[in-house]
Amino acid sequence: MARIVMKFGGTSVGDCDRIKNVARRVKAEVDRGNEVAVVVSAMSGVTNQLVDYCKQIAPLHDAREYDTVVSTGEQVTIGLLSMALQELGVQARSWMGWQVPILTDGAHGKARIETIETGELERRMSGGQVAVVAGFQGLGPDNRVTTLGRGGSDTSAVALAAALKADRCDIYTDVDGVYTTDPRIVAKARKLDKITYEEMLELASLGAKVLQTRSVEMAMKHRVRVQVLSSFVDVPGTLVCDEEEIVEKELVSGIAYSRDEAKITLVRVADRPGVAAAIFGPLADANVNVDMIVQNVSEDGKHTDLTFTVGKADLDRATKVLSEKQASLGYERLVPDSNVVKISVIGVGMRSHAGVAQKMFSTLAEKAINIQVITTSEIKVSVLVAEEYTELALRALHSAYGLDA
Amino acid sequence: MARIVMKFGGTSVGDCDRIKNVARRVKAEVDRGNEVAVVVSAMSGVTNQLVDYCKQIAPLHDAREYDTVVSTGEQVTIGLLSMALQELGVQARSWMGWQVPILTDGAHGKARIETIETGELERRMSGGQVAVVAGFQGLGPDNRVTTLGRGGSDTSAVALAAALKADRCDIYTDVDGVYTTDPRIVAKARKLDKITYEEMLELASLGAKVLQTRSVEMAMKHRVRVQVLSSFVDVPGTLVCDEEEIVEKELVSGIAYSRDEAKITLVRVADRPGVAAAIFGPLADANVNVDMIVQNVSEDGKHTDLTFTVGKADLDRATKVLSEKQASLGYERLVPDSNVVKISVIGVGMRSHAGVAQKMFSTLAEKAINIQVITTSEIKVSVLVAEEYTELALRALHSAYGLDA
Repeated sequence: MARIVMKFGGTSVGDCDRIKNVARRVKAEVDRGNEVAVVVSAMSGVTNQLVDYCKQIAPLHDAREYDTVVSTGEQVTIGLLSMALQELGVQARSWMGWQVPILTDGAHGKARIETIETGELERRMSGGQVAVVAGFQGLGPDNRVTTLGRGGSDTSAVALAAALKADRCDIYTDVDGVYTTDPRIVAKARKLDKITYEEMLELASLGAKVLQTRSVEMAMKHRVRVQVLSSFVDVPGTLVCDEEEIVEKELVSGIAYSRDEAKITLVRVADRPGVAAAIFGPLADANVNVDMIVQNVSEDGKHTDLTFTVGKADLDRATKVLSEKQASLGYERLVPDSNVVKISVIGVGMRSHAGVAQKMFSTLAEKAINIQVITTSEIKVSVLVAEEYTELALRALHSAYGLDA
Repeated sequence: MARIVMKFGGTSVGDCDRIKNVARRVKAEVDRGNEVAVVVSAMSGVTNQLVDYCKQIAPLHDAREYDTVVSTGEQVTIGLLSMALQELGVQARSWMGWQVPILTDGAHGKARIETIETGELERRMSGGQVAVVAGFQGLGPDNRVTTLGRGGSDTSAVALAAALKADRCDIYTDVDGVYTTDPRIVAKARKLDKITYEEMLELASLGAKVLQTRSVEMAMKHRVRVQVLSSFVDVPGTLVCDEEEIVEKELVSGIAYSRDEAKITLVRVADRPGVAAAIFGPLADANVNVDMIVQNVSEDGKHTDLTFTVGKADLDRATKVLSEKQASLGYERLVPDSNVVKISVIGVGMRSHAGVAQKMFSTLAEKAINIQVITTSEIKVSVLVAEEYTELALRALHSAYGLDA
């Protein structure tokens, strides 16, 4: 007997028929003799509708009232799924965040889970009752409903699995696992059987929208084994787990890309102490997140070129902030460029193997793709190239690292 | 300074613009220096949608899960209205049933309010904060959400007004008050300034759909002054209050009608002890509510005719139940008739004045309207006539009792 947390997202519970389908999935797990808790999102479209109401009423609204409104979506789903399970003869009951309780901090709209009191839940689960828990919500210190921010149901599921010391947290979604790269671009992309937390974290933060970044962080911290699988197709998914569990480690596990970046170059910035702080301070104040940064070696000892990337949505704002400060910053020219893509090669294997970055550079060079910016981390190499090379670069790298199916 | 409970139904909060309109209404009450609690229903159509989901999932569903699902409608409205009030500069916060708490019994789907702990609510209201409370819901002894049954928000409002010892409970609706009769039928119908609890109770249970019967019972029990008024037009409504408060009592306050009745006549029933029990027992078992009953004097000492009314929706079921028992009941013939209307004249004045019933009979006789069944109570006379006379009878009686505008 195992203890399993199953999580179903909005499209998996999009209408009553799909909710019945989810109930059959849960029943199958119960029939295998497992203790099951289920975490669900709102039916697809519902949360957007509720958020839209809030915006219509007041553009700047009280986050506590926002949480009261938007948390209702999950409440509807837990009730309906519990009914559907009972209809199949499975004992089940719904749990709202305040009923469990799932205690969070008071940051309404983006709360963080602090503790989950699982006593009553465990007592009932061991009695054969499926616990159907509302994702995305909790109870704040003010005795009011909090929400965890968009995509928070993944985090709810992983946190619940950690608190219940579950053997596994199965995240059912509309894809059937984690792929070596985007299969819509690279036909030879393979589904991974296993991937480490660290790699998944890089993939998630690089735009592979399979799991919410925070949920992966939490899974890594509490060593929760997370499986990503399809709620529509009955095939094994991808297990996100500890490095120890992966016997045959790949040098590179996946190749991610992000088109959400834009590049800014400041030409002939004064090369003196404090200039980086003078540039990035105002950007941080304007809530612009800066990702890759490259500063050239100064040729004349007085000036240098500075290149960095920001979110594409922030490009105009960043340009405006820096243009207003051109005199004080003393740069010659600002060159914005939104036709870029960030391509990243990810793998825990590169910790122990040299040459991974070199293979990336040579592969891109062979295809005559110019690299504009490079950054690296312990398990990742990222490069910025012109956007038009996205598909070419992905396919070439996928082959070069031996990932083709 | 007065303490007021304001209640707004589903059409009054039907979309975001209407919710903003409600906020302006509430602000006006606050600006008069009053302490205000607001009780709201779900946006119109929402509860029906939620009920429909429940039916799609399982025709016979767990009432506790049903309550979890359908109570979300009011939760959305309290959040949105609180935001709308804040947007107008009015301090406000939302309260779900479990937060107040509004404690009910455990009869999920049709719970009864037991106590409302108003301590925190009153503390905040006296600090100038408007309490926006979800109608229709409470917290059961099992720590789960309960609902009060359809139309329960009126009951929530009156119960809250009683608990808060409010000076008045204003029920905002899509009509502007209680009329002497249905103005769609009788053009000369007048809006009443005041009406007693007893009269309102008769009107409500006779089908005037202005207030839910249970809320009137509760108002009467706790002597809560209830005002019915329009949420769209800014004119005084009708005050439902104690008889003492009404200086000029009318002999008759209103004339109600109900087309929801059907008549059954059992011809030549054996006239012996126990026969009524033998007839009405099986009907009660089949959940058929019997209203008016008339038994003729037996002519031959052996047989009699028995006439009674049931809800029109129950006519087929009642006919079936009795037909199956024709042999044991020993009646000759069953005559069903759904072309009837029940017309009732209501007024506390008739307690002290004779002749009210007589005026009804003579007025109908003048118009050659045959009375089929008569029942009376302390403050009401009801007659059953052929449905085609509805309009004629209502207009004639309205004039005869001097109610015309």
